[in-house]
Amino acid sequence: MTRLSTRLITGVAIAFLAATSARASDPLPSWNAGKSKQAILRFVEDVTTQGGPDYVAPAERIATFDNDGTLWVEYPMYTQALFAFDRAKELAPKHPEWKTKQPFKALLEGDMKTVGASGIKGLLEIVIATHSGMTADQFADEAGAWLRNTQHPRFERPYARCIYQPQLELLQYLRDNGFTTFIVSGGGIAFMRPIAEEAYGIPPHQVMGSSVASEYRSKDGKSEIVRLPKIGFIDDKAGKPVGIYEHIGRRPILAFGNSDSDMQMIEYTTAGEGRRLGLFLHHTDAEREFAYDRKSHVGTLDEALEDAESKGWIVVDMQNDWKTIFPAR
Amino acid sequence: MTRLSTRLITGVAIAFLAATSARASDPLPSWNAGKSKQAILRFVEDVTTQGGPDYVAPAERIATFDNDGTLWVEYPMYTQALFAFDRAKELAPKHPEWKTKQPFKALLEGDMKTVGASGIKGLLEIVIATHSGMTADQFADEAGAWLRNTQHPRFERPYARCIYQPQLELLQYLRDNGFTTFIVSGGGIAFMRPIAEEAYGIPPHQVMGSSVASEYRSKDGKSEIVRLPKIGFIDDKAGKPVGIYEHIGRRPILAFGNSDSDMQMIEYTTAGEGRRLGLFLHHTDAEREFAYDRKSHVGTLDEALEDAESKGWIVVDMQNDWKTIFPAR
Repeated sequence: MTRLSTRLITGVAIAFLAATSARASDPLPSWNAGKSKQAILRFVEDVTTQGGPDYVAPAERIATFDNDGTLWVEYPMYTQALFAFDRAKELAPKHPEWKTKQPFKALLEGDMKTVGASGIKGLLEIVIATHSGMTADQFADEAGAWLRNTQHPRFERPYARCIYQPQLELLQYLRDNGFTTFIVSGGGIAFMRPIAEEAYGIPPHQVMGSSVASEYRSKDGKSEIVRLPKIGFIDDKAGKPVGIYEHIGRRPILAFGNSDSDMQMIEYTTAGEGRRLGLFLHHTDAEREFAYDRKSHVGTLDEALEDAESKGWIVVDMQNDWKTIFPAR
Repeated sequence: MTRLSTRLITGVAIAFLAATSARASDPLPSWNAGKSKQAILRFVEDVTTQGGPDYVAPAERIATFDNDGTLWVEYPMYTQALFAFDRAKELAPKHPEWKTKQPFKALLEGDMKTVGASGIKGLLEIVIATHSGMTADQFADEAGAWLRNTQHPRFERPYARCIYQPQLELLQYLRDNGFTTFIVSGGGIAFMRPIAEEAYGIPPHQVMGSSVASEYRSKDGKSEIVRLPKIGFIDDKAGKPVGIYEHIGRRPILAFGNSDSDMQMIEYTTAGEGRRLGLFLHHTDAEREFAYDRKSHVGTLDEALEDAESKGWIVVDMQNDWKTIFPAR
């Protein structure tokens, strides 16, 4: 027997076992039986049944997921903001002017109330100051290292692992059924990319997000992308369908979010012809994660919650629909 | 025997035959033996040899290709400009002001000399006027239909098939070796996407190019992307590495272009650490396609041709390196 045919026969055995066990077992073991799980399983079956009325060719099986609060923890403060705060403290010695300039002064003094009061504008200033002025590679190294090495105080695991086990199963289940999975986040594209592949199995080119502008610099044989202190694109609210058009070029057939910022993405997805699925994760689990919705400043879920039923969107109830929240450490 | 195991055994037989024939046969049959072909085969072998000094993990095997003049014909006039001219003639009844406004007036009168004299600025005006003011889906339908149905006068095939057979083989060969293949074009992203999958096997989300701005509009249950009469991004020259950063998020290890507009992309690619390959297609074949380089206004290849040897870039000579130019009709 040649080496090649030995390898092929081993391959068959593995494929056979895998196929058998996939049929026998539950592709979404961390999802409790219920309306949400049923809607997902039914949708995937419908769009993958050849000859069925809802069949969708694999190339068109585009699934988009928000990140903050949909794939990883966002409450009570976006992970990227925590990173920006840490970075600002690290960079402070190089910025003596921050000692007197708000919101940097407050941040360095640990006065988070004043930082909070500076609002989105203040937060953006901190983000831009800490996310620019370096090469793309340097930033990726910094963000990746911070996410892998900074421990979440409550969940006792690195921020890169504060991700939801049921969603990892869903992403894999979709890919196993010929879907291409994308992240469409309001958060920074360059912040998520360094860990998106190891965390979610999603390669960098399938990650979209907000960005700073950047430029190409070539000098003395070194060619680099340099990040500039200027907003490039805001991939949030009505920016999400625009980002999807520019980046993917196809309308998704499934979209999953958790806040009103995802409404336009989900509306754009479910308004398409044929079978579509829109889902919102509702954070209802104060015990295992957090409970927040209409009145929260982070991940506000109000209008979408109101409209979900009439629009046919599935509201996933974290407490009831999810058996486990996080992957094993 | 179960249906599943019958299918698996058929699968094995096919896989076995495919593996055997892939080993026996040439993956680049339309490439003549020579330095260019050797450099490509050697590079792919080196980066895919596990344990070898130049091994690159599959996730990092990013290959980027320019489109105009690299994957399809661009001479003597970019295909997209021809489309814009045809569209302008079609739209003219709705734009009575074009009868007196240049360069539209000249275009409608068939006075291409005046159109040409209006330069890039005039051309851009025509492109913007014909590429905006409709939904994304409408534009995709129009561009796709034009490319599939408009015959190239000399090559007697639709423009969508004025693509280079040796490059189709190279794209497939790279994908067969674990590469992800991307288009990084100065041309319009939305113009190429409708045919990129059927022409090159490249899905829309792996196509980058220049764009007009767009916005999301939702009304009466209809949710659409609308194309605006305003430049969004110019994916050319130093814009190419920026576009690659924003869209792919990884530095390519192989890049293929044909003009000075591709220099920054190829410089960015080959300046990376480890084994890299940069290639330029030199149009040297007046008989089977076209011969042009330093003095051409379309696809100028001057500086890159000068620098290629010292930078280790491969200059592919169309006349000598390519056995055939186009795929069978």
